[in-house]
Order: sequence, then C-alpha cells, then structure tokens
Amino acid sequence: MNPTISAFKNSPDGGKGQARDMRVRWALEEVNQPYNVQLFTFDQLKSPEYLAVHPFGQIPVYQQDDLTLFESGAIVLHIAEQHDQLLPDEPNARSCAITWLFAALNTVEPPLLDIEEAILLDKDKPWFEQRLPQLKQRAHNRLAQLSNYLADREWLEDSFTLGDLMMIAVLFRTKETEVINDFPNLLAYMVRGEARPAFKRAFAAQLAVFKASQAQE
Amino acid sequence: MNPTISAFKNSPDGGKGQARDMRVRWALEEVNQPYNVQLFTFDQLKSPEYLAVHPFGQIPVYQQDDLTLFESGAIVLHIAEQHDQLLPDEPNARSCAITWLFAALNTVEPPLLDIEEAILLDKDKPWFEQRLPQLKQRAHNRLAQLSNYLADREWLEDSFTLGDLMMIAVLFRTKETEVINDFPNLLAYMVRGEARPAFKRAFAAQLAVFKASQAQE
Repeated sequence: MNPTISAFKNSPDGGKGQARDMRVRWALEEVNQPYNVQLFTFDQLKSPEYLAVHPFGQIPVYQQDDLTLFESGAIVLHIAEQHDQLLPDEPNARSCAITWLFAALNTVEPPLLDIEEAILLDKDKPWFEQRLPQLKQRAHNRLAQLSNYLADREWLEDSFTLGDLMMIAVLFRTKETEVINDFPNLLAYMVRGEARPAFKRAFAAQLAVFKASQAQE
Repeated sequence: MNPTISAFKNSPDGGKGQARDMRVRWALEEVNQPYNVQLFTFDQLKSPEYLAVHPFGQIPVYQQDDLTLFESGAIVLHIAEQHDQLLPDEPNARSCAITWLFAALNTVEPPLLDIEEAILLDKDKPWFEQRLPQLKQRAHNRLAQLSNYLADREWLEDSFTLGDLMMIAVLFRTKETEVINDFPNLLAYMVRGEARPAFKRAFAAQLAVFKASQAQE
C-alpha cells in the first residue's frame, strides 16, 4: 500500500510550502514514492482520534500498513532508508548526511523559528520591537556559520542527501524575513533546492491543497 | 580504536549533566563502549581547528577512526546503530523509537530551552517578567501532551530505547524550573532514567570533569 500523510486542510502559511508536510512530500517525490494525503483542520488535530496517532497533535503523520510515524525528521529518515536516493551507501557518508538532518532541525531551525514565532505570537506585545534585533542577530550568527561551512559547495556533502532536503526546507523559513540576504551562497543553495523537479512537484501539491480550501470558502 | 568525544572543560551547567555531551556519554555507557574525552574551553570551540570538525562550534563532536560526527541526536543514533541495546530489531519498532528521538529534540526540548535561555540571557531585560508566564504555559502544554501519552507506561515504547534516553535527557532541563512538577508520571519516568547504571556512570564522568576544572582554578 502507498503511504498516507496528514496535512493541513487550510495551511496557516497560505500555501507557501512552510508547513512540515512539505518536507515529507519532497522526500517522497525524490524517491518517486506515490502517496495519499489526508487533510485536517486545526480543530481536528486536537481530537482524540488524531492525538491517538500523534501525541502532540501536529502535522504530519505518516502511515503505511501497520506503521505510524510522526516528526518530519523521523519520517524523512524512514523514507530515505527505504530507498536509495537520499542517503549514500557508504556507512560513514551515510552518518554524515544524517548529521546534517539533525543540524538542520536542531541547530539551524530554532533561531529561525524564534523570529517567526515572535512575529506570529508577540507582535502586539510591548517587548516585540525590543527583542526582535536580538533574535535576528542570533539567526544571523547561525546562518553565518552555515554559510562559512557551505562556502562554494553545491550540497552539504558530496551529493544531495536528506540533509540538504531538510536544511533547504528550514532555510525556507527565512523567505518572510531579510535575515538570509547577507549570505549569497545560502540563497543560491536554496535556489538549487527549489530547482529540483521533486521539490517543484511537492510544492505544487501542497499549494493545490491550499487553493482548493480557499475555493471552498 | 575507541571513539573520542568533545566536552566542556568547564561546563556552564556546573556539572549538572545538562551539557549535550551527557547524552552521548549515556548512550556509550548503555552499549558498554569505552570512549575518550577531549576537553575544550568556550574560546577553543570558536577556534578554526574546532570549527573545522564542528561548523557550529558546539559540544559534542564524536570521532572514531576517519569518521567525524556532530549533533548529539545524530551521534546517539549512530551509536545505537552500531550496537544492539538502544534500538529494537523489528523494523517498525525501530522507526517508532527513532520517532521519539526526534520528538525529544524537536518537539519537547524547544519550549524547555526557551525558558532556560530566557533565564540565562534575558533576566535583565524589561520584558523578562512579562514573557516568562507565556513561556511556562507553552512548556506546560507540551509536557501535558507527553504525560498523556506516557500515562502509566514504563518507557515510551515496549522497552528502553534511544528515544527514552533523549527524552529523559531533555526533561532534565526542567530540573531548574517547577514546570514538570504537575506531571508525576513524567517525574517518575525521569527517576527511572536516572536509576539506570549507565546513566549514573555517565553522570559521574561529566561531574568529575567539572570538579577537576574547579580544583584547577
């Protein structure tokens, strides 16, 4: 059976590809694995039925036969392990690619998410304007380290891996802010990711869901 | 050759076991893998030599023969894959355990880390007192979801896995705040982790480093 993933019926990002189902769709497209999508409203994510498959009530869940997974990092790793395209065969190269998967989620994403959450949740708070420069500086420092490492490499390791997929998906969070603009090599890296046919198919699929939800309203 | 990990010469947590080398030490102890430790000051982490092995200048790095890894999640996963004790054999159970590894790092740790960072970095800021209740509420909500899932289970899945190891290491961040006290089952889960002989050996090893650094001053 093809896997089924969960996604927002009406994504809060307005179809910009920043919801976490995008990462899983992209991985599935890279490995040419057809999949089904089940759509949920925000309220449905907090229902007992959904919490029974995802204890934290988030997007996405991945289900195939009797396997149920959550956490986009775990799902992308699982997909990569089932196919050949997203992980090198050589054991050391494989572990290095997985290191970048964790680095994307645990080291690069948090300072970018902090900015996004402040804009989303704290914009009316008295401290928002005072705190924003500090958040942007932290994000800048982290991106500077990534930019130094990437230098003129095409991908983080010798070929495109799940580490690049997740890192580029994470860098997409900067689309709404100017924080990445100081790093032309990161911008070019993001563009290389966007140019991949699998990315384009995944992006189009999630955008189609959002447009359909708008048409219904 | 036994692996070598990096750790703080003088950990900012004062030997409380909250630096990220603790997670890797614990995993190595669970699988009975002897290891070496190389100690670094904060300044040394920002040196070109260290940045050449860890682009983000953090603790820990893991080196064995010609393999160099960073990110505690990636290192713990690598250790688990080399041995039998931290991952089930059955493929679906294995993927579920890895899901908890990601959930610990990406879903449970961020709201706990936000509180810690606010206390560490923003205590003198005018917004600190206003923002803290909001941060505590978010951490509470996330722990409530984890507590609901855990219920009266001993571990997150059928046996102790790398997912429990990371989740318990993450819950340790709450030791300085009262945010976990509303959840007796999470407190008991943390105590079960602390009671493991491998945890005790890892904790003693990192504490010994801190005490040695104090004795030198």
